[in-house]
Amino acid sequence: MSHTLLVVKIGGNVIDNPDACTRFLAAFAQLPSPKILVHGGGKVATQVAERLGVKTKMVDGRRITDQSMLDVVTMVYAGLVNKNLVAQLQPLSCTAIGLTGADAGIIRSVKRPVQDVDYGYVGDIVQVSKRQIRALLDMYLVPVIAPITYSSEGLLLNTNADTMASAIAVEMTYFYKVELVYCFEKKGVLSDPDDDAAVISSLTPTSYAEFKASGVINKGMIPKLDNAFKALRENVSRVTICHADDLMAATSGEAGTLLSLDE
Amino acid sequence: MSHTLLVVKIGGNVIDNPDACTRFLAAFAQLPSPKILVHGGGKVATQVAERLGVKTKMVDGRRITDQSMLDVVTMVYAGLVNKNLVAQLQPLSCTAIGLTGADAGIIRSVKRPVQDVDYGYVGDIVQVSKRQIRALLDMYLVPVIAPITYSSEGLLLNTNADTMASAIAVEMTYFYKVELVYCFEKKGVLSDPDDDAAVISSLTPTSYAEFKASGVINKGMIPKLDNAFKALRENVSRVTICHADDLMAATSGEAGTLLSLDE
Repeated sequence: MSHTLLVVKIGGNVIDNPDACTRFLAAFAQLPSPKILVHGGGKVATQVAERLGVKTKMVDGRRITDQSMLDVVTMVYAGLVNKNLVAQLQPLSCTAIGLTGADAGIIRSVKRPVQDVDYGYVGDIVQVSKRQIRALLDMYLVPVIAPITYSSEGLLLNTNADTMASAIAVEMTYFYKVELVYCFEKKGVLSDPDDDAAVISSLTPTSYAEFKASGVINKGMIPKLDNAFKALRENVSRVTICHADDLMAATSGEAGTLLSLDE
Repeated sequence: MSHTLLVVKIGGNVIDNPDACTRFLAAFAQLPSPKILVHGGGKVATQVAERLGVKTKMVDGRRITDQSMLDVVTMVYAGLVNKNLVAQLQPLSCTAIGLTGADAGIIRSVKRPVQDVDYGYVGDIVQVSKRQIRALLDMYLVPVIAPITYSSEGLLLNTNADTMASAIAVEMTYFYKVELVYCFEKKGVLSDPDDDAAVISSLTPTSYAEFKASGVINKGMIPKLDNAFKALRENVSRVTICHADDLMAATSGEAGTLLSLDE
């Protein structure tokens, strides 16, 4: 396994800002291959839903994906966002191929079983087809993956992009040394949410538990970090969380929050 | 060149009808590989545009693709339509991969130069990357291609699906014996537009010229047939125009209108 595979997740807030997105893509295009980009959705899906009169349904603060909302996210994530990222990467000498989990059957999921809440058309990943992804990488292609998967019954399913990035990274450790980078609109995991410079430069399971207990790390950051530590425990070599503008620096350990299992 | 490659174009009217589309996909999935599906857009794009308040601009009866309309067709063709076709094909043992021309750089175009009319974000094909398509077919994948291409500047461009199917078929003759099938909502080219049974079973350049001169063949059928005859002149072995329900019969010469250069 001579190659390092880089799996980069880019958050919706960066995609929503055309200048930030263009800067990010310029940096991403310069990274060595093989590499994979997984993208989130951004506010465009909510805006399109509003303009189409599709109401966002929430239960206990969590979004429900009904058929109308699934159509919207399929249009926006797999169509508008994914294809614009792909088209912008081509002139940067980065031969991108835009995919959902359904394409080439790369990421299969099951519709989340109804327990207390029916989340609707939401998929929990059951299989990443590492050989198909490897074959695309062997064509010198750069997969750009939208947060949608499919079920064996032929349904499209809305799926969390952080989880997809982590699942892909873990599965590809079969072939590669894999590094996972989560890029978003903050400089890393912050010890003070109001101070953008207060970046926690490294996190271990112990310090993560302490930050959670004290409430310094909370809300949306917890599932992201749980995903990230899970990836490390499942053979991903390195996980970094950084600002989208710091992608290059983060890949060489000079920016962001570096996660490690070594206490 | 031992293999025959089948390039099938499915029209928007079939996609608009869920039952007809499901029947078509069941037949398409049973055809031998290698094969490629190129799909049109259908009325959904117009409906979504209306619901979003995006006005369809027409000049001299031809549609203009401004930025808002490009976003709509990118959402609907590359997102909603393409990904639903792909997800429906997977359980039919047909490992589909949904693509636009931008993906893997397979179909590059130029923004149509402004002469009398500015058509906006419309692409005229300049290059089909036959080696990338061949490599995907060699992975036993079935490309499902949406009618959108890209320019070397990184623009997405709305592109005619009939022309895309024809350009792909012609380019792939480098590797394969290629057959092209246009599927739509009629049983073939009709000698009487009001009689669905009046199928012209075969057309040559001479009989086509006569039917055009007498007005029997007119309107939208003319660019479709011009594309088809051009493909035959450029080494495509066989072109058939048939009803979507007759795909299987048409591939064995038992339905539709068969085009031929042999007078």
